[in-house]
Formats: sequence, C-alpha cells, structure tokens
Amino acid sequence: MKTIHVMSGGMDSTTLLYQLLDEGREVKCISFNYGQRHKKELDYARGTCETVLGVPFLVCDVSGVKELMKGSSQTDDSVAVPHGHYEEENMKKTVVPNRNMIMLSMAAAYAISSSYDSISYAAHAGDHAVYPDCRVEFVEAMRMAMDLCDWNKVSIYAPYLSKRKEDIAAIGDKLGVPWETTWSCYEGEDLHCGKCGTCQERIEAFKLSNLKDPTEYKP
Amino acid sequence: MKTIHVMSGGMDSTTLLYQLLDEGREVKCISFNYGQRHKKELDYARGTCETVLGVPFLVCDVSGVKELMKGSSQTDDSVAVPHGHYEEENMKKTVVPNRNMIMLSMAAAYAISSSYDSISYAAHAGDHAVYPDCRVEFVEAMRMAMDLCDWNKVSIYAPYLSKRKEDIAAIGDKLGVPWETTWSCYEGEDLHCGKCGTCQERIEAFKLSNLKDPTEYKP
Repeated sequence: MKTIHVMSGGMDSTTLLYQLLDEGREVKCISFNYGQRHKKELDYARGTCETVLGVPFLVCDVSGVKELMKGSSQTDDSVAVPHGHYEEENMKKTVVPNRNMIMLSMAAAYAISSSYDSISYAAHAGDHAVYPDCRVEFVEAMRMAMDLCDWNKVSIYAPYLSKRKEDIAAIGDKLGVPWETTWSCYEGEDLHCGKCGTCQERIEAFKLSNLKDPTEYKP
Repeated sequence: MKTIHVMSGGMDSTTLLYQLLDEGREVKCISFNYGQRHKKELDYARGTCETVLGVPFLVCDVSGVKELMKGSSQTDDSVAVPHGHYEEENMKKTVVPNRNMIMLSMAAAYAISSSYDSISYAAHAGDHAVYPDCRVEFVEAMRMAMDLCDWNKVSIYAPYLSKRKEDIAAIGDKLGVPWETTWSCYEGEDLHCGKCGTCQERIEAFKLSNLKDPTEYKP
C-alpha cells in the first residue's frame, strides 16, 4: 500500500510511522503549520523523517487557518496553555477546532495527486475524552466521505483508535523508536514543560509501559 | 440560524449568499486562497460581501496546499486550462483534489470558533459529472462527519445540490443579484475568456434561463 502519513512529531505519529515502514508500506509524510504555538514539533517531525529514516517529508503551510481558530490555546496567543491532566475540564481550551478533518482532508488531496491509496493518522483512545475528532464514530464518518471525495477511494488507516498511549509506547519500544526524537509539549519551549496535558500523558505513558523516559523536563 | 458561507465569487455562491440573507440568516463569508490560478475571484467575492452587501468577509490564506495539488490546471502552472464543455474528458484537469472537503472543514472550524451552527456552499447538479466532491452522496457523508467533528453539530446547507446552473441563475435574478459583480473564468485574466468550462457554463446558464448576460467576454 502507498500511504500519506500525517506526522506531528509526537510519540504516537512517530510510532505509527515506524509501524507503517515495518508493514512494508510506501510512505510519504506530511506535517502542517497551522499556526500552532508548539511549531517546534515540526522540526522533530522533519528530523525523524529525513535524518533518522530517510522518508519523504513535506510541511504544508496553512498558517492562515489560525484566523479561524480563535479561543484555542494552541492557535490563539491570548489563551494560555492550561496545565493539568487531559481529563480535566480546562483541557478543552487545547482543542483546535476541526483540526483532524482539516489535516485529513489535505492529506487526502496529497494522496490523490500522488496516486496513493491511503492516509494514516495516530488518533488514540486517550484522546477521546477531550477531542471530539479523535472518536471512533468520527473516523467512521470520515471513512465514508473519503470513499466519495474522489473517483478512487482514499482509505484511512488509524490503527490506534482503541489503544491507550501506554500501548502505543510499548509498540514503539518494540519497533525501536528513538523517543528523544519526539516532541509532545504544547508550550513549545526549549524543554518539555512536564505540566501541560500532553506532557503529563507522555510521562504517564512511559511509566505505565515500564519504559525509561529519556525526556528532559523543565525543572 | 448563523451560517458561515463558502464564497467563491462566482454566480452560484453569490446567489446562495443573497438567498441566505433573504432567509434571514446571520452570515459571515469565507473565501480561500489555495493558490488558484483564478485568484481574481477573491476580489469579486470581497466586492460583493463588503461593498455591495456589507457582510463580514475573510480570505483564509492556505496557499501552501498548492504543493499537494500537482496536476490540476487550477493550481499547477505547468498544466494549461482546458477549453471546452464541462462534460468533456479533458475537463478533469480542472479538478482540484479534495477541494470541497478542505474548504468545508475549514469553514466548519470557523463556525465552531464563532459559535455558528451551520456552513453553506453552492455545489450544484451541473458539477457532478466532473467533480466527485459535488455529488449528493459525498455531501451526505460529510454531513455525518460534521455531526461528529465537534461536541456540537455543524450542519451543512447545500440547497442547490439537485439544481442546474440555469435554475440558480433564475433564483439569483429574482433576488436581484448584480451579475457583473461575479467572476467565473478559470483563466483569471482581465476579461472572461468565454472558452473554458466554467465560462461556457456561465454563457449557457444565462441563455437557458432567458436572462441577459452582462459579461464582457474576450473577443
């Protein structure tokens, strides 16, 4: 299969990239600059694709969408990144409206013009509580739309939909993912902050899967 | 209802805008710079919204997606705009891969962050032969995805899906659409070329609906 992989540079999408290659797929990766605060993730995505793995990688600049996304801590500089656990109410501020549909639709355009048959992304079960566009039923609806958006079907591969982040960490460990080349933190500063939702989830994933966490967190 | 309207500046989206206002909806319009050859349409969209109607209008710059759309005459400078009728085989070159899903997904993001309940676009029956993402079944699938992309539903209003372009011209005529403020031509030069698929469709629509065509075509 030929797959366009939506790569954020975090643990999940990096693990899925390793899995795609392990499965023998032909892969091109795409990341999006949508004006996110943690743009730093794009450098990590590029490093993994180009330097570590030698996989084609493209950053698509759609930073104009930032204008449509007022109110999210990740795209609106006037909203601070909330600290705490993903399940807490204040984490809703980190939701970037319709981010996954936007990214999947553009990945599909890339697949269509590349004559690729599929796209992949690493939405997982831990996201569901906060992010409506990581729910299984959302992905099912998107599959139907992707079947019809072109004369040929574009299939969606999202094998982590029912997995927890610690399961993904365990898969990544088996596949030899070098975790130090991944970036999670929503703050996007020099070091991982250790306090935002995604840092807390990162810390927890290593702990629950009994893996050594190589990340240097801000003191 | 509060509706984000996807506005291209052509006859169909302009007529739908007039209809939305006639129906008493609160409307904000959005156009996209996706690197299209006929960028000129954006000026027409702005003119209609801001100068003629006084409706809020935003151009979202996502011209980076052009990199994902090689092979379309509308986004790839190396591919010439084909001349002829929409039903001809060579018109397929004008297909911009997954354009409608991309635009609807961003319009939905804008609706979500604006606390609007719906988005609208003017896909119509005449498009179906060439454009897979103007088909009724595509829109039905997108409706399901839009129901799930956020915690609140975003509804899609696409009242022209089963209408022909001449029906839309007749609706626009009744609503008083000033056709000279609309732009169709794919070439995007000074005057409408009169030869590309969308010009031919424009000429035909005025003819079939027995309306005077005020457009000045290139001699």
